[in-house]
Amino acid sequence: MDIEKVNSMGFGEFVDVFGNVIERCPLIAAAVWSKRPFSGLGDLEKHFFAFIDGLPLSGQEGVLRCHPELAGRQPQCGRLTAESQREQSAAGLQNLGAAERLRFTELTAQYRKRFGFPFVLAVRLSDPGAAPRELARRLRCPPAQELRTALGEVKKICHLRLADLLGEQP
Amino acid sequence: MDIEKVNSMGFGEFVDVFGNVIERCPLIAAAVWSKRPFSGLGDLEKHFFAFIDGLPLSGQEGVLRCHPELAGRQPQCGRLTAESQREQSAAGLQNLGAAERLRFTELTAQYRKRFGFPFVLAVRLSDPGAAPRELARRLRCPPAQELRTALGEVKKICHLRLADLLGEQP
Repeated sequence: MDIEKVNSMGFGEFVDVFGNVIERCPLIAAAVWSKRPFSGLGDLEKHFFAFIDGLPLSGQEGVLRCHPELAGRQPQCGRLTAESQREQSAAGLQNLGAAERLRFTELTAQYRKRFGFPFVLAVRLSDPGAAPRELARRLRCPPAQELRTALGEVKKICHLRLADLLGEQP
Repeated sequence: MDIEKVNSMGFGEFVDVFGNVIERCPLIAAAVWSKRPFSGLGDLEKHFFAFIDGLPLSGQEGVLRCHPELAGRQPQCGRLTAESQREQSAAGLQNLGAAERLRFTELTAQYRKRFGFPFVLAVRLSDPGAAPRELARRLRCPPAQELRTALGEVKKICHLRLADLLGEQP
């Protein structure tokens, strides 16, 4: 899909196509449509990022809270979006042993409690097996710093999903 | 469900329960969770409304663009949320004759083109059959005024859905 095609879309089609580049936040795609025409992938993603940066703190936390728990209960319940499912299965988290998985689940619960949002990681950009290490490291970060880190991961995920949709190299 | 129950919810449960009181905008419920505890329905909805009012223009338009078209193509395609389906079927729009329905569809297309978002109406608060008349009237309003009117309808819908969830009289 080239950028001319993107610029020709009505808001309904645009939201259908880009509504999940920020996980479960079609509102953001629907807002970004106001900024068309876009000159390319970089310009398009700039508007997604600017919208997130312009949200109040509660809204930025809200974006994170719309993300699934990594290796959490959602996969078993079938509630992951298609994009998350592909990304998580690429991350090798299902290869964790029972004890490692239990430990990972305990740490994600601690993370949620400490920060008030789930642990978000652009797993496609991480080494296989890096998620537990990253989780343990980020769990110790100060909350304001961790919010920035987590939103940075959201933006990486957004970049990868947009590149997929536009058929470009990330 | 009483307000103590609401205040005891983690963000995951809160977003599951309240994620669609603003149509297809779980981000807003996820943000409002930051404002707990809530003293009651009025306090809870105040935070939903304040979040919408604090969005940039593109975000407010985005909220509207997440709404389905009234009597639009979505019902046939099965893409309406459960809440919208109940509300639309209560509005008697399916009782329009073929000619009235065609006219209504034409006017909603004109509305979308003029304002850049779909025609949103809290149909549960309208007289049966009032939607075509309201649509014709609002189609002639200045864009800035119509944006305010449409967001007012979003807030009425939010109020009704919250009252349903809390088991209170709207």
